[in-house]
Amino acid sequence: MAKNIKLSVDAMGGDAAPAIVMDGLVEARLRYPHVKYLVYGREAEITPYLDKHPSLKHCCEIRHCDDVITGDQKVSQAIRQGRNSSMWNAINAVKIGDAHGVVSAGNTGALMAMAKLSMRTLPGIDRPAICSLFPNQVSETTMLDLGANAQCDVHNLVEFAVMGACFTRALKGIEKPRVGLLNIGSEDLKGTDLLRDAAEILRESDLDMDFVGFVEGDDIMLGSVDVVVTDGFTGNVSLKTAEGAAKLYTEFLRSAFKSSLMAKLGYLLIKPVLSKVMARLDPRKYNGALFVGINGVAVKSHGGTDAIGFANALGVAVDMVDRDLNSSIGEQITHLNFVATESTQATKTA
Amino acid sequence: MAKNIKLSVDAMGGDAAPAIVMDGLVEARLRYPHVKYLVYGREAEITPYLDKHPSLKHCCEIRHCDDVITGDQKVSQAIRQGRNSSMWNAINAVKIGDAHGVVSAGNTGALMAMAKLSMRTLPGIDRPAICSLFPNQVSETTMLDLGANAQCDVHNLVEFAVMGACFTRALKGIEKPRVGLLNIGSEDLKGTDLLRDAAEILRESDLDMDFVGFVEGDDIMLGSVDVVVTDGFTGNVSLKTAEGAAKLYTEFLRSAFKSSLMAKLGYLLIKPVLSKVMARLDPRKYNGALFVGINGVAVKSHGGTDAIGFANALGVAVDMVDRDLNSSIGEQITHLNFVATESTQATKTA
Repeated sequence: MAKNIKLSVDAMGGDAAPAIVMDGLVEARLRYPHVKYLVYGREAEITPYLDKHPSLKHCCEIRHCDDVITGDQKVSQAIRQGRNSSMWNAINAVKIGDAHGVVSAGNTGALMAMAKLSMRTLPGIDRPAICSLFPNQVSETTMLDLGANAQCDVHNLVEFAVMGACFTRALKGIEKPRVGLLNIGSEDLKGTDLLRDAAEILRESDLDMDFVGFVEGDDIMLGSVDVVVTDGFTGNVSLKTAEGAAKLYTEFLRSAFKSSLMAKLGYLLIKPVLSKVMARLDPRKYNGALFVGINGVAVKSHGGTDAIGFANALGVAVDMVDRDLNSSIGEQITHLNFVATESTQATKTA
Repeated sequence: MAKNIKLSVDAMGGDAAPAIVMDGLVEARLRYPHVKYLVYGREAEITPYLDKHPSLKHCCEIRHCDDVITGDQKVSQAIRQGRNSSMWNAINAVKIGDAHGVVSAGNTGALMAMAKLSMRTLPGIDRPAICSLFPNQVSETTMLDLGANAQCDVHNLVEFAVMGACFTRALKGIEKPRVGLLNIGSEDLKGTDLLRDAAEILRESDLDMDFVGFVEGDDIMLGSVDVVVTDGFTGNVSLKTAEGAAKLYTEFLRSAFKSSLMAKLGYLLIKPVLSKVMARLDPRKYNGALFVGINGVAVKSHGGTDAIGFANALGVAVDMVDRDLNSSIGEQITHLNFVATESTQATKTA
């Protein structure tokens, strides 16, 4: 376990900021007593939480910023006008060495753009990706890109595979994670140039992964592989589809359990085991998406999460700093054999 | 209700053919007593089912074919060598006017390729799409393309929107179905050229739909719109992701209900209401994907379905023949205002 980890936190990002951020820090303080936080935002709004939770005074240092990047702000505008914002300053704290990693529940596009601008990408990485976990029947599946790059070329996909494998190894200790490229079932469509080229490079490179070739959408939650690699358009749609399916199931079950006296009684009896199932599927458990490929640690929390969810996002940052993910990516990327192909097609122009 | 509908059926397609096909016909005979079937396949394998279910003798005519297109056969090979196959001959029955529509649980790629080759596409339609229903919180969402076209241009997406709206109107009687184009959340990525151009054409054309603009992956199962339009790569991944999520939920619940004596008792009490929920989510309910845009009615059943599922696929064909979907598409397509854009970019080369 690491020593002296310091994270910078954007206290003003997310739907219920700074409340959920500060309550999340209270939870995180219990889990990670060795971690300190630089809390960026409007001092007048943040201070009351330190008065309410005196324990935070030992681990938090408030750094006042006047401005807030809103959720609907355009990225270009955020970049131009956001230099006094809590988001920019929290990110920049990592750049200048004040913090080891940054966590924000704010505007995803702005956070990614600012992180790239301030910290830059890792050597050898063309584009960072959004990387997170999905529940599966056995444990969890790492998936990327979840929305940073709607258009990807062969190199992007290959680099995502390397980064996803390193992330999974760092997080779970799996020496050679099983990695699959997301594709569709029809044999004739399988392995179009872009995906075939990416698969060829991954097969021919000497990497710390078990590259299994192509997988399909249902493999994500079946747990057939440890890492699923795709472009940001497909990944985002897949993530949101899974969220929609989970909501549908939960909603149907909720209304069924209330629909008769017998069902209500039955619900009381199954409630303990049902809570365990729901805990495994709880979106808060999977909160905290890593911007992998950034030369630093940057984690995005869902904007609508609560304190527990935000603490989980802080936990992702703690783990990644602790396990020095970026060194492992830097080492693996040198093993890529890019000579095999010259394809630079985009997966989508959409 | 229609008169004298005749469907051609590929008795040899699917994992458990011809058993599930023939058992599906028994079920369909009860539901659609006015429909007749031309049953293509190996007579020696089919006849025993007619002896077992004498009711089938009144509605089925066997047409012997020596060959079977297998699930793993390449499309190009199926096309070249499949002229004596049950699939080709069932399709061709529609082409030559012997049947109003065809249903097969066989190789999707071969079925689509043969249907295009034999029946051709509707006038004004560049490419057919695979169209089916997803459950949502209110009723069902029509979604296309589910995998026929990994690469789509602006015209394809616009035509999918028109066809999806016509399908939904024919099936459900919704006069102006709400139609959304699938996109991802980030504001800066929203409305890239391809999707923006498609949206513009749909907004500017005088169509029988309520075009709502962009939707995201979670809208599919929330039921925010009646029709979700996307390319075949994204659509297929989304479909399979939803299937994977459903399996995960079902599996988690199943094991939870068996995990203690109290849970088992509770399960007995909630079983009646749970069965209703499961019935709404039953994949068999959504079996039968229409190849919309084909100049004829062609329906693909899931290869692993059972008799109930296959009967549902037959039901899709009956509905589409009955409601004359293709005339309505032909009329709507003339309202498209394609002048607005010249974009012909592919959504993916993947």
